[in-house]
Amino acid sequence: MADITTLPRNEVGIAAVISALGDLFQDRLQTGQSIREQHGHTTTWLENQIPDAVVFARSTEEVSAVVKLCAQHKVPVIPFGTGSSLEGHLNAPAGGISLDLSQMDQIKAVHAEDLDVVVQPGVTREQLNTHLRDQGLFFPIDPGANASLGGMAATRASGTNAVRYGTMKDNILSLEAVMADGTIIRTGARAKKSSAGYDMARLLIGSEGTLGVITELTLRLQGIPEATRSARCSFPTVEAACQAVMMTIQYGIPVARIELLDALSVRAVNGYSKLALPETPLLLLEFHGSEAGVLEQADVFGGIAEEFEGSDFTATSTAEERNKLWQARHDAYWAGLSLRPGCQGLSTDVCVPISRLAECVGLARAKAEELGLMAPMVGHVGDGNFHALLLLEPGNRDEQALADSFLNWLADTAISMEGTCTGEHGVGQGKRVYVQRELGETTRFMSAIKSALDPDNIMNPGKIIQD
Amino acid sequence: MADITTLPRNEVGIAAVISALGDLFQDRLQTGQSIREQHGHTTTWLENQIPDAVVFARSTEEVSAVVKLCAQHKVPVIPFGTGSSLEGHLNAPAGGISLDLSQMDQIKAVHAEDLDVVVQPGVTREQLNTHLRDQGLFFPIDPGANASLGGMAATRASGTNAVRYGTMKDNILSLEAVMADGTIIRTGARAKKSSAGYDMARLLIGSEGTLGVITELTLRLQGIPEATRSARCSFPTVEAACQAVMMTIQYGIPVARIELLDALSVRAVNGYSKLALPETPLLLLEFHGSEAGVLEQADVFGGIAEEFEGSDFTATSTAEERNKLWQARHDAYWAGLSLRPGCQGLSTDVCVPISRLAECVGLARAKAEELGLMAPMVGHVGDGNFHALLLLEPGNRDEQALADSFLNWLADTAISMEGTCTGEHGVGQGKRVYVQRELGETTRFMSAIKSALDPDNIMNPGKIIQD
Repeated sequence: MADITTLPRNEVGIAAVISALGDLFQDRLQTGQSIREQHGHTTTWLENQIPDAVVFARSTEEVSAVVKLCAQHKVPVIPFGTGSSLEGHLNAPAGGISLDLSQMDQIKAVHAEDLDVVVQPGVTREQLNTHLRDQGLFFPIDPGANASLGGMAATRASGTNAVRYGTMKDNILSLEAVMADGTIIRTGARAKKSSAGYDMARLLIGSEGTLGVITELTLRLQGIPEATRSARCSFPTVEAACQAVMMTIQYGIPVARIELLDALSVRAVNGYSKLALPETPLLLLEFHGSEAGVLEQADVFGGIAEEFEGSDFTATSTAEERNKLWQARHDAYWAGLSLRPGCQGLSTDVCVPISRLAECVGLARAKAEELGLMAPMVGHVGDGNFHALLLLEPGNRDEQALADSFLNWLADTAISMEGTCTGEHGVGQGKRVYVQRELGETTRFMSAIKSALDPDNIMNPGKIIQD
Repeated sequence: MADITTLPRNEVGIAAVISALGDLFQDRLQTGQSIREQHGHTTTWLENQIPDAVVFARSTEEVSAVVKLCAQHKVPVIPFGTGSSLEGHLNAPAGGISLDLSQMDQIKAVHAEDLDVVVQPGVTREQLNTHLRDQGLFFPIDPGANASLGGMAATRASGTNAVRYGTMKDNILSLEAVMADGTIIRTGARAKKSSAGYDMARLLIGSEGTLGVITELTLRLQGIPEATRSARCSFPTVEAACQAVMMTIQYGIPVARIELLDALSVRAVNGYSKLALPETPLLLLEFHGSEAGVLEQADVFGGIAEEFEGSDFTATSTAEERNKLWQARHDAYWAGLSLRPGCQGLSTDVCVPISRLAECVGLARAKAEELGLMAPMVGHVGDGNFHALLLLEPGNRDEQALADSFLNWLADTAISMEGTCTGEHGVGQGKRVYVQRELGETTRFMSAIKSALDPDNIMNPGKIIQD
């Protein structure tokens, strides 16, 4: 089982910090049980380890004040965005303060000429894109959930658009952050590139709050493409679908999204969304470009699909038809859960070189069947990244143990294929043991960085680094 | 003047290391004056501080052995690729060992299906692209010089293609490196993305050998585009050219290169390369895509250029014509030097938000004139990055002082425009003082990382971090 061992609590320090924060923040310090539970880790199978208090900050200076107090008393600080992470990132194994950044939700400046935007960390992805739409701009990273941009940076989020636009690491120009001693730093300004020393932005991106609290982000934007075209195509096997994807990417088609649903997922969405898709592996695609460009891209893909026995190829450019066509993907999570009414979903992901993806998905299918687990799979297949949604009976310890055995096996299998145990779900508590296996000695140097920047281990302790 | 202060030498340690390396490496350890001078910093105006010996490694294990010996005796190790860096990256202010990696020049595996390649650090950019050509693949980063890929990673190189393909930070999947205690680490494998803890690859990229020696790189490749089209267009002012560039990028045209030459640079290439270009600011462009796509891209750009008083718009897709069209850019450096026969060139760069670029170039032109310096400028204008080539009389201290005053002013001006004092030239010795001004408190955390990973300061000391 994942290691969510409780860590030693500093009761005296916690009491002192709560008292001082109460004076400073008044009713923006909350200690009620339900709000604390909601700020512990609630979105996964991992046990909820609740913080001792929740404080709502409204400025970088307030974040700095909170961190300084916690540093002074050696009390944990756990940054909180929207709570949509999946691997125990928000648990408080040593108690401490949940630092809720959702009220830092200002879009501070849009620089349309420079294609960048400056936001506070509590701004959500959808809020930002709604704000930008009238200016013909968008921010491309879409991890599914309407997560906060600070959280997306802290967990190095990606999602369906990553095959074309990259992940959070590729779309952040610079960060402002509060470090473990309360110092406010900036990693740069608005230059599109820089070679000014160590890449502190990239170090903070994916650090899951263990090195500092992100308090402002300067993000790279994209122009909304002149035209968008969506397509779908069914394939006899996952292997045929993956071959078509590889050919598409080698061909240089700048596909914006290319998503795989396995046969079980297609069955689930047929039932859930009243569709009549062939119950075989399905690819869903989106192309961005000029009117002529997206037609050409989709046509070339259609030709490639045919080579690999693709069938029922459909493409459309109208918004309504596109949404209908992508419905299968949007509903995949809830459709998956509906395969086993009353179940609890446990979502995991790995990422492998695309040449190994079909094999990895096939082995995962066989392993799940061997263990008697139901696990629809969907993938950001252009990146070699896929998710298995294990459908478990709540409270069933035997199934939980089988699930754990599956997770272990899947991580090891991905690692053995020159992949990673976590493509986009991060490490949190749940994947620390796998990261240790994947990176070995490298984690010793990660620990050295953690100790150097946070000597008292107050920044989101018990995450990423094995204690 | 730039701070290249000599640091204290550990004479006993250096002698011990040279003796032990002689036993291990035989004639692959060299201590002759000329080879040592060639491995100190020879490509710039900075004084050459030569290492005590040069050792040629042929494997990761040999690199580890060298670093372990140097760690044991607390002697500096300075990794060396091809010696094309510009800011004193290779100087040996405390003496020590130049670790030449040019014999680690094996291309270990090309994974065409996954669009990645595994190389040793001494492989050069041109060597790699020659090797890949038959497979229809290329590696897009082109800093001009035929640099080693290890060096390009260590300095976070970019260049003309960065506007479309990003910099080294965006094109490296993972690294193998030898850390300051001799430990060999891997930052990951071949997954296209990962969220497995701190981004150690991105930390090493741009660390200029101060945190570890890069011994293997897994690089992301691109398919050679079906078609390439080049274009050029003259503009009445730098501002008009920059306006056209901004519109082009906002329009979502995926331009692969977009380079600016100022009027002085155009005059220089006209003389040097016997061209007859209008002696006004010039944009050179390259488009990658399908046959139809590149035609469309170039046409749309042509329309935009017209809006901003562009003239002499020319576009072509044949290789020979394209080369002719780009000749002005390829010759810009030598052409610039020819403006003042016998001069020494001092190349510097900054990067600003593109909306400030015309202003920054204009101010730099005025400043150079005020100081009586001749300084043709060229820019990777899609990124807001430009270079000024100061043409100085060798040995003229007064001019050197004026140049230094220009460099200081340019760094401060770029910083004041929310840009950076170094877009792609790195920090080395020459830009430490500017990075300190640009990033302030942030550099304290860079120092903390340096101390944590290299407590004895043996890895390329005196670079990036102010001692």
